[in-house]
Amino acid sequence: MASTPGELTVRSGRVKHIRRLATRAFRAETGEFLAEGPQAVREALAEVGATVEIFATHTATTQQGDLLAAAERSDVPWHVVADDVVEAIADTVQPQGVVARCRIPQASLTAFLASGPTFVVVCADIRDPGNAGAVIRCADAAGAEGVVFVGDSVDPYNPKSVRASVGSVFHLPVITERDVPVALGALRDAGLALLAADGGGDVTLFDDDLDLAAPTAWLMGNEAWGLPQTTRELADRVVAVPIFGRAESLNLATAAAVCLYATARARATR
Amino acid sequence: MASTPGELTVRSGRVKHIRRLATRAFRAETGEFLAEGPQAVREALAEVGATVEIFATHTATTQQGDLLAAAERSDVPWHVVADDVVEAIADTVQPQGVVARCRIPQASLTAFLASGPTFVVVCADIRDPGNAGAVIRCADAAGAEGVVFVGDSVDPYNPKSVRASVGSVFHLPVITERDVPVALGALRDAGLALLAADGGGDVTLFDDDLDLAAPTAWLMGNEAWGLPQTTRELADRVVAVPIFGRAESLNLATAAAVCLYATARARATR
Repeated sequence: MASTPGELTVRSGRVKHIRRLATRAFRAETGEFLAEGPQAVREALAEVGATVEIFATHTATTQQGDLLAAAERSDVPWHVVADDVVEAIADTVQPQGVVARCRIPQASLTAFLASGPTFVVVCADIRDPGNAGAVIRCADAAGAEGVVFVGDSVDPYNPKSVRASVGSVFHLPVITERDVPVALGALRDAGLALLAADGGGDVTLFDDDLDLAAPTAWLMGNEAWGLPQTTRELADRVVAVPIFGRAESLNLATAAAVCLYATARARATR
Repeated sequence: MASTPGELTVRSGRVKHIRRLATRAFRAETGEFLAEGPQAVREALAEVGATVEIFATHTATTQQGDLLAAAERSDVPWHVVADDVVEAIADTVQPQGVVARCRIPQASLTAFLASGPTFVVVCADIRDPGNAGAVIRCADAAGAEGVVFVGDSVDPYNPKSVRASVGSVFHLPVITERDVPVALGALRDAGLALLAADGGGDVTLFDDDLDLAAPTAWLMGNEAWGLPQTTRELADRVVAVPIFGRAESLNLATAAAVCLYATARARATR
């Protein structure tokens, strides 16, 4: 399945096309994104139909025999290319020689909610792709069934987000719905309680009054300014992670981890 | 208290001296470190005796009137310098025009343990300064009384760590003790149960069997390879954060957040 080396160069039209997947507009137009590095490519190959093709250096082809075998089992084309081609395609400085071109799963909020999820994470206006990926990873670990990006959020299929998710973008539906009231209305109509995580909450995460085992959508806001008032007002409860020391707050990913694991614990022990 | 502008240039011996605080060896030699940006400088000034002097651009001096006033109240020298001097001193690309030269608190593990702490965080072989700072911030938020860096860990007074701690390096004792068995022995002798956070734990964080309200030192390991076997063997329990979805693990800062908040919750609700 591996093509002959040297077929593609950094000047090939195909390579130029793939490089454009670094932009959100081209990802939206093509419905494709890039997964970089052995671990992400392994996760891509584990999902049926997720991978279009793989580009790997000679060295990576030699060192990542298991990936090559997985690609062959799945009939995914594997192209051996020069090092500079992988470098040109990849967003990472050191992509460890292997990049997969993948399909963005066609996940609509309506179809996702029709599946009856009871644990969802909503990211509102999250701008940093590293944070987006870290929250997707946490959501996956805590057993959430999907992550919805609303408002003016980063594209979760941004290469940095994909990398920070350490494969989790392949594990659960990751949906973008820009219209905040529409998204939150649909989540509520699906029977989910909307819990907004915010330092200025009217209840703390450890409050007995909070039924975390009930179907829940957690709203996490922007890393710098949190959730806008208009979004907080659409939530059922505004929940603060209690601060016991002198820190002003937690960062987005750690606050999400604490909130999502509070839900995971309640669900596991109910 | 502000000195006249233009006194110091990037070629001044004093500026060259301060630049060297970017290196661990020079921080160790001088017992000093740098806090960059208005928030970190504000936290430095809030600690009596922590700040040696402040360097600020004209713009920062105008915009950060509250900081200038705080420096004057505390008799901390404030130097107005050219933009390139602040840029030369700072590790950050955009230090927002203000950098403080600070004293590393003289915290020994022995003195800290003599104060009778009941909630401590131990970082073993943590290499990334951003992670170190994030764990210090989480420890502060969760109400831990100190953070101990053991083994071959990054210097917590590295500029990136200071920045990621968002002021928390000023809030609680942050101690370096390279010898792992010595540090863990001292923590145990101080009556703390040593809980090692590790995916391969013999108990999960949500296990009823785990008394998280008891005096505890949490051991967090390296971001890539976790805790070495020899360190795990020195722990009383090896505790896994349960994974409910398909993620392989959490990242270091989010795993620490989940563990430390489990302890915070147990302490708050006991």
